[in-house]
Amino acid sequence: MAETSPDLSLPELSFADAADGVIAMAHYAGAKGLVPATSGNFSVRMTATHAAVTATGANKAALVRDEVIEAEIAGAKHPRASAEAPLHLVRYVHAPEIGAISHIHSLAATLLSRRHEAEGVLRLEGWELLKAFSGIHTHETVMEVPIVPNDQDTDRLAMLVERRLRESPPGFGYLIAGHGLYVWGATYQDVLRHMEAFEFLLTAQLYEEGRP
Amino acid sequence: MAETSPDLSLPELSFADAADGVIAMAHYAGAKGLVPATSGNFSVRMTATHAAVTATGANKAALVRDEVIEAEIAGAKHPRASAEAPLHLVRYVHAPEIGAISHIHSLAATLLSRRHEAEGVLRLEGWELLKAFSGIHTHETVMEVPIVPNDQDTDRLAMLVERRLRESPPGFGYLIAGHGLYVWGATYQDVLRHMEAFEFLLTAQLYEEGRP
Amino acid sequence: MAETSPDLSLPELSFADAADGVIAMAHYAGAKGLVPATSGNFSVRMTATHAAVTATGANKAALVRDEVIEAEIAGAKHPRASAEAPLHLVRYVHAPEIGAISHIHSLAATLLSRRHEAEGVLRLEGWELLKAFSGIHTHETVMEVPIVPNDQDTDRLAMLVERRLRESPPGFGYLIAGHGLYVWGATYQDVLRHMEAFEFLLTAQLYEEGRP
Amino acid sequence: MAETSPDLSLPELSFADAADGVIAMAHYAGAKGLVPATSGNFSVRMTATHAAVTATGANKAALVRDEVIEAEIAGAKHPRASAEAPLHLVRYVHAPEIGAISHIHSLAATLLSRRHEAEGVLRLEGWELLKAFSGIHTHETVMEVPIVPNDQDTDRLAMLVERRLRESPPGFGYLIAGHGLYVWGATYQDVLRHMEAFEFLLTAQLYEEGRP
Repeated sequence: MAETSPDLSLPELSFADAADGVIAMAHYAGAKGLVPATSGNFSVRMTATHAAVTATGANKAALVRDEVIEAEIAGAKHPRASAEAPLHLVRYVHAPEIGAISHIHSLAATLLSRRHEAEGVLRLEGWELLKAFSGIHTHETVMEVPIVPNDQDTDRLAMLVERRLRESPPGFGYLIAGHGLYVWGATYQDVLRHMEAFEFLLTAQLYEEGRP
Repeated sequence: MAETSPDLSLPELSFADAADGVIAMAHYAGAKGLVPATSGNFSVRMTATHAAVTATGANKAALVRDEVIEAEIAGAKHPRASAEAPLHLVRYVHAPEIGAISHIHSLAATLLSRRHEAEGVLRLEGWELLKAFSGIHTHETVMEVPIVPNDQDTDRLAMLVERRLRESPPGFGYLIAGHGLYVWGATYQDVLRHMEAFEFLLTAQLYEEGRP
Repeated sequence: MAETSPDLSLPELSFADAADGVIAMAHYAGAKGLVPATSGNFSVRMTATHAAVTATGANKAALVRDEVIEAEIAGAKHPRASAEAPLHLVRYVHAPEIGAISHIHSLAATLLSRRHEAEGVLRLEGWELLKAFSGIHTHETVMEVPIVPNDQDTDRLAMLVERRLRESPPGFGYLIAGHGLYVWGATYQDVLRHMEAFEFLLTAQLYEEGRP
Repeated sequence: MAETSPDLSLPELSFADAADGVIAMAHYAGAKGLVPATSGNFSVRMTATHAAVTATGANKAALVRDEVIEAEIAGAKHPRASAEAPLHLVRYVHAPEIGAISHIHSLAATLLSRRHEAEGVLRLEGWELLKAFSGIHTHETVMEVPIVPNDQDTDRLAMLVERRLRESPPGFGYLIAGHGLYVWGATYQDVLRHMEAFEFLLTAQLYEEGRP
């Protein structure tokens, strides 16, 4: 597993620049079929206290600026925040090195998270494309991606996730069973690369395991 | 299963507006490969008595306004109506809350409807994306999608379908064995989202079941 | 199996119009990934004695007019004819109702033709999309698609194919083992629809059979 | 296996022309999803001593001229060369008939190279599309694609590859286990065709083998 050295000094971003990053991630995910039926959500940290986040109900594949809101990371809930906004915001609280987060519903993530829910973890091992994650320099890596059960109470789910992540080696994302994938990075460009790498690796893993 | 509260007061639409909805659904389905070889058909309700419906023989992926007709819901058959128009029109008669309907031939719908024909139902359970359907608010849902046998006599088939649907919990669509999927909603925008959700869920279900 | 009533009076086409049909089929197949690595070839009958055919070596996905040649159906080999031109031309000799032919290398055709080579036939049965073929009006159809062994001597292969087709019920195409599909129709528009229908049906069949 | 007759007299190319070939291969691979998450690299030989090669870190799907460097085939390492540049350059040293090389990370190449790593070779046999490779004239061919273990020391890996290739019949590429495919040809146009042929054949092979 690569070590990610927390970077406490990410540059501050204006809302306009952060929203551009949110839109770039959303359009990429939409074009690749990773956010079916208006699912998924995206965020970019602006400062220690604020982040740009997709508003509830938007079609992410065609996201426009008006559908990105400026949310307080630890403050009151924004009136247009989606139900899943807490899952983004608590990550920014606990991980100062994170500058951007995507939540996507890819087919491979949905299937593998259900199949391995009882184990609580999905292991990705030996694939060259593991090197696409920031700080991983060899395929001789075992990436352990935590899997948590799904829960419609997202505040409770966020607390569970953070507890699991504190016990896990530093990583780049986690799965919610039958639901999808959260993936992060220092910048939205890193998250674009990490989304593409997870999509390839999860699809390869799904094929390699075969079917039930 | 989410409750759908029948809405007896859908706004009336002009033929022009209804035809735009028909074209939007047809082009979406065409772009996604859900209506191969000129298959599929689409409709939007205008009033209690009329609906805009795709004419017979059109290539839905490239549908134009002249290929949409104004059909009486309970009246004489339109000379350019497709053989499957009755399956749209009786739904409007029996379900006042329905404002738009798509009929598509996706690979997953075709395969699963054949595989589960003897059971007469396909169960979709526990997937987060079930929440994409109007009125479903939790993944802890069992959606029962009725499956009816295929029949080239579409008047007889429509009667069978309506009888099955009266006995089933309210839902969003049904499968015809070896044939495809009917899916509806209050507006064509809802149907676009429901088509995308069914396509994802049926594909996930097909992968999860594995192959014979 | 639908009856195809031979039409001895197909309208004559100019080379320009026939070449447009060849290009339309080639571009469609290219866009769908059915002619990988410059494979595949396409033809449209002009008259009882001539047809427009793709020249050897062209990239079909980007076919231009100069890469379509005017070939004699029963005459001397055109200097730019591809090695597979005889497989097109003998069909025009034996079947006056055929106005256009596509040869494509889809994944499903390649796999199923190898798997069922020993049986010599692939059966497609009960699928609604069988109705996409001209003259088939019900899913209660068994379409028997002949499979012949591959052979680099295309004159010999063409003779074998015609012998097999004389013994078979009238149909819309045949498979060459490990190689691909030939598909025809009265017009190039029919062939576009038949290509799309075969691609859907062969893919569905491949999934339904499962894997070895 | 087809004989490839070494061509010692490839025409010399300017850097501009060679870079255009590099960009054409990179854009093709990007459009087809063969270089996920900025993976992959591409080169075109200019002369006996120099080649145009993709620089490290570039997004190949959107490669621009500034991201192509002029590297010495047997000289000092270019400061912007990627870690995998040696795997391209030693091929040019050992095989004068090679004018262009692609390295891609397709799903099928990644999966099959892991599955067959212990055998050290993947056999492709009897497929018509084998004829897409320069010099192969019949499907009655067994193409043996060498598989080498993955190694982050690319100088060491390059030596191992060259030793394996000297012991193998002349071919068109090799696999690195869990990593991807190297593929070459006399010109970048040949490599485009060979990439497309390998992608089809490896995908067909993966389906034909079935899953574990």
